[in-house]
Amino acid sequence: MSRRHMILAGFFYNPQGDHRMSWRHPDAPEREVFGLDYYRSLAEAAEQAKLDAIFIADHLGVWDTYPSGMLHYANARLEPLTLATALAAVTKNIGLMVTASTSYSEPYNLARMFASVDHISNGRIGWNVVTSALAEEAANFGRDAVIDHAVRYQRAAEFLEVAKALWDSWADDALLIDKASGAFADPARVATLDHQGAHFRVRGPLNVPRGPQGHPLVVQAGSSDPGKELAAAHADVHFAVLRSEEEGRRYRADLDARLARRGRAPESLKILPGILPVVAPSRKEAEDRQAELEALMPDRIGLDLLSSWAGIDLSSFPLDGPLPDLPDQNSFEGWKTWLKIVHDEKNKGLTIRQVARNIANTGSVPMVAGTPSEIADQMESWFLSGAADGFNLMFPLLPDDWLRFMQGVIPELQRRGLFRTEYEAGTLRDRLGLKRPENRFAAARAIAAR
Amino acid sequence: MSRRHMILAGFFYNPQGDHRMSWRHPDAPEREVFGLDYYRSLAEAAEQAKLDAIFIADHLGVWDTYPSGMLHYANARLEPLTLATALAAVTKNIGLMVTASTSYSEPYNLARMFASVDHISNGRIGWNVVTSALAEEAANFGRDAVIDHAVRYQRAAEFLEVAKALWDSWADDALLIDKASGAFADPARVATLDHQGAHFRVRGPLNVPRGPQGHPLVVQAGSSDPGKELAAAHADVHFAVLRSEEEGRRYRADLDARLARRGRAPESLKILPGILPVVAPSRKEAEDRQAELEALMPDRIGLDLLSSWAGIDLSSFPLDGPLPDLPDQNSFEGWKTWLKIVHDEKNKGLTIRQVARNIANTGSVPMVAGTPSEIADQMESWFLSGAADGFNLMFPLLPDDWLRFMQGVIPELQRRGLFRTEYEAGTLRDRLGLKRPENRFAAARAIAAR
Repeated sequence: MSRRHMILAGFFYNPQGDHRMSWRHPDAPEREVFGLDYYRSLAEAAEQAKLDAIFIADHLGVWDTYPSGMLHYANARLEPLTLATALAAVTKNIGLMVTASTSYSEPYNLARMFASVDHISNGRIGWNVVTSALAEEAANFGRDAVIDHAVRYQRAAEFLEVAKALWDSWADDALLIDKASGAFADPARVATLDHQGAHFRVRGPLNVPRGPQGHPLVVQAGSSDPGKELAAAHADVHFAVLRSEEEGRRYRADLDARLARRGRAPESLKILPGILPVVAPSRKEAEDRQAELEALMPDRIGLDLLSSWAGIDLSSFPLDGPLPDLPDQNSFEGWKTWLKIVHDEKNKGLTIRQVARNIANTGSVPMVAGTPSEIADQMESWFLSGAADGFNLMFPLLPDDWLRFMQGVIPELQRRGLFRTEYEAGTLRDRLGLKRPENRFAAARAIAAR
Repeated sequence: MSRRHMILAGFFYNPQGDHRMSWRHPDAPEREVFGLDYYRSLAEAAEQAKLDAIFIADHLGVWDTYPSGMLHYANARLEPLTLATALAAVTKNIGLMVTASTSYSEPYNLARMFASVDHISNGRIGWNVVTSALAEEAANFGRDAVIDHAVRYQRAAEFLEVAKALWDSWADDALLIDKASGAFADPARVATLDHQGAHFRVRGPLNVPRGPQGHPLVVQAGSSDPGKELAAAHADVHFAVLRSEEEGRRYRADLDARLARRGRAPESLKILPGILPVVAPSRKEAEDRQAELEALMPDRIGLDLLSSWAGIDLSSFPLDGPLPDLPDQNSFEGWKTWLKIVHDEKNKGLTIRQVARNIANTGSVPMVAGTPSEIADQMESWFLSGAADGFNLMFPLLPDDWLRFMQGVIPELQRRGLFRTEYEAGTLRDRLGLKRPENRFAAARAIAAR
């Protein structure tokens, strides 16, 4: 099953935009980020542009380990699953990919909510599975420190096993609703799990029938080795941080090999690298716009962010001196994707101040800037070379950059035949070219009945 | 602060109606109960009638301990918090009271979702706090049996303490969003909790700012002694099961005494007894309608329900013989409200079959039946005598009984000046005559600053 069109998701974590100080921009929204109307207008613009989905990132806490966090950072936000559910009620076609953590919740609760929103949205919900790497998050859930990386990923894998079994606990034909006989459901087509694992014991069945997508779309975003293994085992969509087309092709090959080892076809996992698209009359003007945002960054934030990503408090080191030895990437228990960015070649030999500015300002994904045509060129190249199935669009400033992209770049991609001009019928899975998962219990019953 | 109008909430657990076999009725909805449109039409009718709220009950599992459950009972439903959030997006004024359990979730997660929906709904969300008494629920969360009643209530009280502290963790004026200085929030007006209790350790702060209501409305529904204590300590609204006006007045006095011991005024807790309103040309025809529903009840369901409520498997006892000795109400670890109903005087001396029919059919709350004027008479009497601040309306059959009430009884109550004809401005709290809670941290800071 090949897909002619690229997959596009409009991303946000900060509702003011992906640049950490975007909230200070004169055009940034203020208190309206705490109401539905702001998001509804973003969603409507994206739906008008026929985007596949909105992707909402999340953390289970504020960022205040370092002193600048609470003062300068836009820590307050809405919870994404409830926000996405409200958006599902006021949109018709666009998908909603929502971040939720497997480390600090129960599979029955999350599986149930996602199943419920799958019904409410007519099959448009996706779950971005994360494991929560921040110390601030751990402390909100009774822990002195972040759970070990390996344990987090073991728990995530078991969590997904249980969630998928719960989604399968009602066969698609289990509901009879036979008023005459009084049979609401066929007990033989409703399965208990009696799951007993290292992290969870869950009896089941779920109390929500199987949804339009069978399983809500599963998205995974961590690119550590256990992260990629989790994606290969369970995900439909993988959100990657890639710096070049070449890295994208290598990354695709790596994941294809992992999929093959599990008997999965390459097209069963869509890879969406994040890009930072900035529409401007020229690359130069786009860079000027970025510089305008960079000028809003207090020095202290960059340093504190670097401390956080590196897992070392750097406040006592000379700002214009070199970085101390960084933690080993293999044994690091924090957010490996971020540590990897600090370790990047381009930061070698730079001072702490320089590295701090680098990471605080440019973020983690490549900027794709210029005219709509120039941006479309780059996206087309990544897409056609097989480096990407589409993109997670991370805009520096919302709503401006979001609207510029929808109004400028989308029509250009449509003209080139790279993006849909109308929504196809069906669920989010259908539109992404992903199969509706078979029901494991129904399949087992069919084998047993032979 | 006295309130001229009664408070009215439209309740459902089964989306087909409160009678357990309502789904079999020819007019009952079928698969549409798994989509938003059905609930939107209920909500629109209720909002048109100016109802205070919709109240959605919940369990964290199916009811299948006894064999008839999975076959005959309408076990599949949507998850209420996501459903209510979707309804918040498509309504403007009506409140949404949603059940969520303190026994099988984390305070940070639930406090955050309710805070978020308080923003999304512009201050219309309420949380019906339950502790989950079913064995089926326990088994979905790693437990061999239901958590002890006392422990569940201790956990609930601590859970609410933490949730309220999280809702207070941002002062109302903590958000500065000062683009010029780069100060997003005032760190001195954002509090960490560093809560360490018997059940939870939570650092905080929440990552959602304080909502329009300060605290989402807190509803509590269990009428055991620990349940009433929880209500007196924490609730704004108490949902009660009362059989008579006289019982209502005694119940009110009991709760007033409990409130007084905690320094709370009687008007700070609204008591809403459940009633089953059936609009029909006469009481006789209403009873015929009930008999029609009763005829849909398979014998086996009544027996199994009685076994479940009594905490004894009765399937081996002679159906036409007497009930065996029931468990003691004080030491019972199951759902005390239900056991109490089995213990009721009217069941004394009846056979198992008769008690089973009684409890399976009539449900737990009094039927208020007849013409709109007759129904309004009874509601008026309860309201004016102080037996009730309003009612939780539990309709035998949805959407029919819901629509009949909205179209028939509401105008009658309005004519009598007992119910609003337009929504007042403000939040759900405002409309119920409840104060916006003070922020504990802001209050402490004010005292410290003196």
